[in-house]
Amino acid sequence: MSDILQQLDRILAQRKLADPTGSYVASLHHKGLNKILEKVGEEATEVILAAKDTGDDPGSLVGEVADLWFHTLVLLSHLNLDSAAVLECLQQRVGVSGLEEKASRT
Amino acid sequence: MSDILQQLDRILAQRKLADPTGSYVASLHHKGLNKILEKVGEEATEVILAAKDTGDDPGSLVGEVADLWFHTLVLLSHLNLDSAAVLECLQQRVGVSGLEEKASRT
Amino acid sequence: MSDILQQLDRILAQRKLADPTGSYVASLHHKGLNKILEKVGEEATEVILAAKDTGDDPGSLVGEVADLWFHTLVLLSHLNLDSAAVLECLQQRVGVSGLEEKASRT
Amino acid sequence: MSDILQQLDRILAQRKLADPTGSYVASLHHKGLNKILEKVGEEATEVILAAKDTGDDPGSLVGEVADLWFHTLVLLSHLNLDSAAVLECLQQRVGVSGLEEKASRT
Repeated sequence: MSDILQQLDRILAQRKLADPTGSYVASLHHKGLNKILEKVGEEATEVILAAKDTGDDPGSLVGEVADLWFHTLVLLSHLNLDSAAVLECLQQRVGVSGLEEKASRT
Repeated sequence: MSDILQQLDRILAQRKLADPTGSYVASLHHKGLNKILEKVGEEATEVILAAKDTGDDPGSLVGEVADLWFHTLVLLSHLNLDSAAVLECLQQRVGVSGLEEKASRT
Repeated sequence: MSDILQQLDRILAQRKLADPTGSYVASLHHKGLNKILEKVGEEATEVILAAKDTGDDPGSLVGEVADLWFHTLVLLSHLNLDSAAVLECLQQRVGVSGLEEKASRT
Repeated sequence: MSDILQQLDRILAQRKLADPTGSYVASLHHKGLNKILEKVGEEATEVILAAKDTGDDPGSLVGEVADLWFHTLVLLSHLNLDSAAVLECLQQRVGVSGLEEKASRT
């Protein structure tokens, strides 16, 4: 399932070239960088509100985090980047090589 | 490489139980939900600023997106959730089954 | 001109009771606290973007700061507070008595 | 009391020129526009969290709104603007002349 980010990268690259009147993603690219960043800001606020409201049902928070990640992927795509660079950065930052991770599981 | 999110989920679950004085992640959990949400808000702002400043070197933006995702993973962990739920949500939202995706690549 | 905040407090108190279909402010109150906070988050993002884009024409930034302040006033009104409490807090924080300020001007 | 914003404008203009090692405001200017905008983003998040946590004691929210306004005033000062332009904008937006306001009070 973790290949979904790579799939999303490819889909977002295709939709970047689509007709803005028929695709939400294409319309964001057409409106430009500021519009995409406004969406990132909005989704971050919605994550915060959903987290404060999360009681027994965490579904709403998960959906808002998905929306936030989605719009950061659109942002990366807008600037000709993709999720692979982010994942690589996360891997370096946490300092997990495959071997270390394997060891930590046992 | 895409397994990094699952690795991070496991590492974050371990660090949630670590000594707050020796682990950044444990210290965030110890300070509580609001502190984690403040970090999510901060990192979203830094993504926006990095995107506005991105010229020929996109490295700074990638690092800020990684920081934002990292802190949303800490948030999920704080509420006993993980990245799998977010990836599932993204998959449903975009409506990509493996077969459709395979077809779209050819 | 600085009485505008007091005027706004009174106007916002009136509009809080208005028909949500005919008043933007009334519609925000009707949608509730989260909607008002989403607007605060949105306007903060727009202030940041306008500040990054400000070149020789600062008019856009001034308008965005006005929007941000306006929505914080709606927030205060929603919780039965007003601008007077904020101004008092600012005065205490900066520690300016009328006399000190008078002296600082000479 | 409503003159506090004008007083703050003057004080902030003075502190802009102060020694960064001895003044918080001067240190923000010294660190530059991005640092000031990070603070605006942080304070907006803290307003949102305080509003969600406001129960019977609204004091925390008032303090956070004051912090947010304060840092927007530092931002305006950084770009050689001040609160007067914002208040003028608010007045035009709400369309309150002194006479209309006087009438609305009776």
